[in-house]
Amino acid sequence: MFESYIKEMVETRRALHRRPELGWTEFETTWYVCSHLEKWGIPFLLGTQVINPKFVMGRDEKAVKDAIDRAKKHGVPADFIEKTEGYTGAAAIIETGRPGPVTALRCDMDALPVRESDSPDHLPAKLGFASDRPGLMHACGHDGHTAVGLEVARWIHEHKEEFCGTIKILFQPAEEGVRGGLPMSESGIVDDVDWLLGSHVGGVLHSGEVCVQDDGFMASTKFDIEFTGQEAHAGSDPQKGHSALVAAACATMMLQGIPRHREGETRVSVGKLVAGEGRNIVAAHALMQMEVRGGTQAVNDFMVDNVNRIIEAVETAYQVKAKITRVGETSTLVVCPPLLDKVEEAMRAVPGIKILPRYHGADGSEDCSWLIRKVASHGGQAGFFLYGCEQKGHHRPDFEIQDETNLPVAFKIFLSFVKLINQRH
Amino acid sequence: MFESYIKEMVETRRALHRRPELGWTEFETTWYVCSHLEKWGIPFLLGTQVINPKFVMGRDEKAVKDAIDRAKKHGVPADFIEKTEGYTGAAAIIETGRPGPVTALRCDMDALPVRESDSPDHLPAKLGFASDRPGLMHACGHDGHTAVGLEVARWIHEHKEEFCGTIKILFQPAEEGVRGGLPMSESGIVDDVDWLLGSHVGGVLHSGEVCVQDDGFMASTKFDIEFTGQEAHAGSDPQKGHSALVAAACATMMLQGIPRHREGETRVSVGKLVAGEGRNIVAAHALMQMEVRGGTQAVNDFMVDNVNRIIEAVETAYQVKAKITRVGETSTLVVCPPLLDKVEEAMRAVPGIKILPRYHGADGSEDCSWLIRKVASHGGQAGFFLYGCEQKGHHRPDFEIQDETNLPVAFKIFLSFVKLINQRH
Amino acid sequence: MFESYIKEMVETRRALHRRPELGWTEFETTWYVCSHLEKWGIPFLLGTQVINPKFVMGRDEKAVKDAIDRAKKHGVPADFIEKTEGYTGAAAIIETGRPGPVTALRCDMDALPVRESDSPDHLPAKLGFASDRPGLMHACGHDGHTAVGLEVARWIHEHKEEFCGTIKILFQPAEEGVRGGLPMSESGIVDDVDWLLGSHVGGVLHSGEVCVQDDGFMASTKFDIEFTGQEAHAGSDPQKGHSALVAAACATMMLQGIPRHREGETRVSVGKLVAGEGRNIVAAHALMQMEVRGGTQAVNDFMVDNVNRIIEAVETAYQVKAKITRVGETSTLVVCPPLLDKVEEAMRAVPGIKILPRYHGADGSEDCSWLIRKVASHGGQAGFFLYGCEQKGHHRPDFEIQDETNLPVAFKIFLSFVKLINQRH
Amino acid sequence: MFESYIKEMVETRRALHRRPELGWTEFETTWYVCSHLEKWGIPFLLGTQVINPKFVMGRDEKAVKDAIDRAKKHGVPADFIEKTEGYTGAAAIIETGRPGPVTALRCDMDALPVRESDSPDHLPAKLGFASDRPGLMHACGHDGHTAVGLEVARWIHEHKEEFCGTIKILFQPAEEGVRGGLPMSESGIVDDVDWLLGSHVGGVLHSGEVCVQDDGFMASTKFDIEFTGQEAHAGSDPQKGHSALVAAACATMMLQGIPRHREGETRVSVGKLVAGEGRNIVAAHALMQMEVRGGTQAVNDFMVDNVNRIIEAVETAYQVKAKITRVGETSTLVVCPPLLDKVEEAMRAVPGIKILPRYHGADGSEDCSWLIRKVASHGGQAGFFLYGCEQKGHHRPDFEIQDETNLPVAFKIFLSFVKLINQRH
Repeated sequence: MFESYIKEMVETRRALHRRPELGWTEFETTWYVCSHLEKWGIPFLLGTQVINPKFVMGRDEKAVKDAIDRAKKHGVPADFIEKTEGYTGAAAIIETGRPGPVTALRCDMDALPVRESDSPDHLPAKLGFASDRPGLMHACGHDGHTAVGLEVARWIHEHKEEFCGTIKILFQPAEEGVRGGLPMSESGIVDDVDWLLGSHVGGVLHSGEVCVQDDGFMASTKFDIEFTGQEAHAGSDPQKGHSALVAAACATMMLQGIPRHREGETRVSVGKLVAGEGRNIVAAHALMQMEVRGGTQAVNDFMVDNVNRIIEAVETAYQVKAKITRVGETSTLVVCPPLLDKVEEAMRAVPGIKILPRYHGADGSEDCSWLIRKVASHGGQAGFFLYGCEQKGHHRPDFEIQDETNLPVAFKIFLSFVKLINQRH
Repeated sequence: MFESYIKEMVETRRALHRRPELGWTEFETTWYVCSHLEKWGIPFLLGTQVINPKFVMGRDEKAVKDAIDRAKKHGVPADFIEKTEGYTGAAAIIETGRPGPVTALRCDMDALPVRESDSPDHLPAKLGFASDRPGLMHACGHDGHTAVGLEVARWIHEHKEEFCGTIKILFQPAEEGVRGGLPMSESGIVDDVDWLLGSHVGGVLHSGEVCVQDDGFMASTKFDIEFTGQEAHAGSDPQKGHSALVAAACATMMLQGIPRHREGETRVSVGKLVAGEGRNIVAAHALMQMEVRGGTQAVNDFMVDNVNRIIEAVETAYQVKAKITRVGETSTLVVCPPLLDKVEEAMRAVPGIKILPRYHGADGSEDCSWLIRKVASHGGQAGFFLYGCEQKGHHRPDFEIQDETNLPVAFKIFLSFVKLINQRH
Repeated sequence: MFESYIKEMVETRRALHRRPELGWTEFETTWYVCSHLEKWGIPFLLGTQVINPKFVMGRDEKAVKDAIDRAKKHGVPADFIEKTEGYTGAAAIIETGRPGPVTALRCDMDALPVRESDSPDHLPAKLGFASDRPGLMHACGHDGHTAVGLEVARWIHEHKEEFCGTIKILFQPAEEGVRGGLPMSESGIVDDVDWLLGSHVGGVLHSGEVCVQDDGFMASTKFDIEFTGQEAHAGSDPQKGHSALVAAACATMMLQGIPRHREGETRVSVGKLVAGEGRNIVAAHALMQMEVRGGTQAVNDFMVDNVNRIIEAVETAYQVKAKITRVGETSTLVVCPPLLDKVEEAMRAVPGIKILPRYHGADGSEDCSWLIRKVASHGGQAGFFLYGCEQKGHHRPDFEIQDETNLPVAFKIFLSFVKLINQRH
Repeated sequence: MFESYIKEMVETRRALHRRPELGWTEFETTWYVCSHLEKWGIPFLLGTQVINPKFVMGRDEKAVKDAIDRAKKHGVPADFIEKTEGYTGAAAIIETGRPGPVTALRCDMDALPVRESDSPDHLPAKLGFASDRPGLMHACGHDGHTAVGLEVARWIHEHKEEFCGTIKILFQPAEEGVRGGLPMSESGIVDDVDWLLGSHVGGVLHSGEVCVQDDGFMASTKFDIEFTGQEAHAGSDPQKGHSALVAAACATMMLQGIPRHREGETRVSVGKLVAGEGRNIVAAHALMQMEVRGGTQAVNDFMVDNVNRIIEAVETAYQVKAKITRVGETSTLVVCPPLLDKVEEAMRAVPGIKILPRYHGADGSEDCSWLIRKVASHGGQAGFFLYGCEQKGHHRPDFEIQDETNLPVAFKIFLSFVKLINQRH
């Protein structure tokens, strides 16, 4: 019954897997989505209709320009690029023409700067759809999310007569770094939404397992920190230099040691550091990319406060200047119990899956939290579910999903949910 | 009398200043030198005739390839590139045809990864010959050294009738990082040399001041250290990751703290660190470029020993693997008093300069030490002199020399020295 | 009805507060307890009858000797000391002579190395019962626990006719550092126990609030780490020294940065460091007292593994030797639901208190876990409850309890519990 | 001819070795010196006649009180103690009654907090005069210096008829930590001195070798740094604590890494750290004893500036307060060539020793620099010589001198020098 959808879903997922794109540069992915929607006759919104530029964080103008060039070379039409206004992301809008609730289903699209495993045991390598952009990889399954979203849109569109109200499928950019959720939530696209549902593959769940989440996104803040010191010859004039590299290294050690917190989980990650000009030159520049997380907003604030003090401290100690830029931010999960009940009801209608207890482990951040928060803020119902796969850990070179078996589960839960909410009377 | 030489010397220096090239990639510079030698009819040697590949350190094959492409685009003939066998550097050989001593004068050619100041006060910016390769700069005066060497060659060649023996002008690549001195010294090019003289602009000397050096090069070892850890999602699975970035940061703090040493100066510089894949991924890779120096060989060995232990320690603590590659090495200065007397005699014949006491401050490393050591090892005489300029510190964006007044001093001392040694009887 | 008990309880608590004693040195406290039990005619056990020396950790023979001398000077009879065999702690044994369950109620006795606040706002200072042993303080309320235990013993003894079975009141030493729980659990004293109940004042609860705990003790391991380096004159021979102090400082920075863990809370505390011989001597010795905790046993094992690797690493880096001694260890809470039901039933019988939901925040370690584990291991029921007070944080100079209002709550819950379990039929 | 002096010198040295006293607590040593001077009829000055309290650094009133009690118990008369006014140190004043130069010979008296080796190979252990004050040791030879000074005083006094002018023998306290030199130099005791000579045993010299020093004391500043943080329970409330211990550890790592300096040697030593209250309490207090040195005053200032910034930084990062107290300070050597010539002339008159070239290795600090500086400042001549011994390194548990052979060398040089300067005409 769903065979052709599932077949195409797997094709889409593998095509996207081959062309991973970092957040805010998903022009090929956005085009892939929209060209299909167009082919099927599904209307969609683009650019500032789905992204509010005032809330955009962590988007590098230069990287966007390079991405546009690259996308054009790879066949994305110039006039489509123009319509994006430089902002990736899209929303399919299926109007049934009948009064009824507005339901939004949300998926995300971006990849990670991870070099994909070329081990013959690694499925994408084995089956020939590994990333052909070295150093980039869909190592968190968003390729699968987008593939699911696209087929959900097609199926609903092709069965529109069975539904009432409006169904939106949101294709959110830049989830990694939690940068795209806030500007999408502030674009107006969910202002009229009554029900919103997002999802993620993997996590602690195994293939065939599903659950809703009733707590657990960590609040998180992402920083770029740029240190500027003073160059000098490290051999003949070490005393004249102020090393941005050593300042950043010291800050790293101090950041790792921010105290744990009674009130909730804490995380701190100095994920990237590029520092120095040459071996025998005292380093004048360092760029650190880091983030903190907290099990509650207050715990995240505690982490942010520590980051600020530590950076101020190394400025003093090492006579460097540090510029701190907030490049991403997300919040904890607002929980809407009635929606969770509905989703579990939807799940029970899907055969062959195992519904696990509601999950509340605080072990990741997810900027769907902003969309959920927005919908809840005007009285709507919003939430999130997980569906399993067999994998060795997210964000790793050997992350993999079993697309043929795992993705249909999400596809069916989404449909089942829409049937519950938007069923024509 | 020297006017045309000095005019051309300044032109050469400024032309080279515009096209800075890092060590082992000086194809445009080598071509600049050799095309002039050729024009003047001076024979020269290239490639493995002046560089022994077995002793080459810190040469990146990929960077060399890119440099060759870039040089070709910039007009360097393909057949010239071929003659270099991929190794930069050259030696002009002036045979007088009369029996007499073999004298070598040595200069170096490479630039640094320093972004040049664009302040209007900075001479190259003001006069319009600033680097046109952003991020690279002749911030240690090697452009001036090469310009001096070239005019010295021309003058001797044009006055060959006044001399006996053989005069070689060595254009050594890759002095920064002390990578080129050893392979040039092992190429055979100085095996028959009786007298060798090198020099450097700047240091502690002001314009018009000169001195010989009777101690003071620090022994030095340069390392590339590649850390490999384990990637993981920093939010959901921090315990699964082994951070190469944190390991490198911790090593940096420990390296900075290697104890001082009674027997001589010590230096340690972690000059460059590139680590991590993304903000929320535990960093799997880090590449550190660092170096140590010691006032004596034993002190340098002490530093090297500490480096090895510290790296081994962070491997244990952070469960990372570290690959240590020795990419540069130099030794302390072997002193030949008779040569120093000769050089001071030569200096006294140059009007308008002030000869300072012999210098022995251990404040830099210089791989001319290998050439000096080689010549001294077979009974020759070798040494080094300094000549001043006004500058704010080497390896800085605002380093500058007053080429019209400073370079002629070196030019005249070299000529005066050759007249003392190779005067036709 | 309980007035005289409560009055004496407050007196006891304040007397003990004046004479704080660290773990394994509670000779005055043990004597205070036992002299009262004796006066009332309640049998009790001492020494190796309640402590199994084979499982004792973190007990310093010298400190015990000094404590015995001090206790004797303070009036503790020598023959009583002898009966303790050098081990503090005691157990009151109330045999009803009637068949019935064996119930154990557990309290702890030791104080902390905290200097008590002398602020006039601080209750003990204001009311004149502050610590008269400078630098030591009952900053965790164990004085109150012991006072409660003593009056519970007296009340049960005086109302023995109402009960069947046996009731033991355990006075456990050395809870701080989780050193006394394991050797008491291995002494045989709880081998016949059917029901065991422990409790703690404070935590997250306010005055009048109570709850049982159904999760949440962290597993914990305590280490003393002794570093031995090499002395040298820091001015003239820094290179000859291997600093135990710097090794310990570096280890501290690394320990603070042990990664967080998805599976449970982590804690690491380097609480004490005494290092070095003199300002200008490279430090040859350092003694670190530290601990780790984990929300699960596996997480604690992860922390211990990291400690071991980090210490091994600084041995390598700094050429020091480190001796790691495990001086305390505790485990997570084994939960017995039937007991929790019983305790909540007992609580409901106490008027004027508010029963909060079962608590499972992993925010401290408590070696009552060993006694609970032991009782559960042979089929008994065991657990723990909390009762509130107003305080600014445990282990702080300004920690305080409102003894007249808080302690009676625990007293009544214990009695109510015993009435449920050991009621004469 | 000198036999009885040498015999007594060795006895004195061994008696002093048995009773090592830290700086400002040398009451037994001062009494030993003065009781002998008194016995021999040599006048001497004490207390504020030789020490200016306004310039005293690093003197702990409590430690002085304890030392006075200890000295009294060990037989030092109370009225002598009273005469010291609490300040150790003394000066023997030998007036010849004949006009002539005023000459001062300076020795120092204090010991170190080093635990003496009990190896049977260690001379003091073997011969039975090892320290009987555990943890304290004459590990820098000041016991020998005082023994030499005392016999020099006796010999000159007994041969007073051969001399003119005045000879002062200065017994300076608290050289370790460079605390006593400045207040002695500001006491007036050297205001009339024409010639001043100090000396030290050991260093780089072997037995029988001697030399004058024509450079090389490092400038140095000694700091006590007291960190105050915030206590909290490390398990349940880690986020409430501000660890003084971690702040001090981080500062240690940063201090070790203060950059090297082109202009001169640098040293930094965090020699002692006592931090924390207990294993599971976030540490509220830490006391660090540290020092820096510089080959020039400017280099030392550079180090001091870095210390101040680093401490300020950790205050910010860790929310602790730090109190920095300057407890010792010394300067570089002022060189008086005419005196050095005289000393070498005096050395040539001593048979059986080897005069090495003038020494200028910057490898230690010596607060005789203040006395030398003071004498030179009013036109006098002052300097320092070294005499060798066989030893494994200063400030080590196995430091030793061969008193019977090494000390006579210094004794004879001092006498020979006085004969040159104060010879009766």
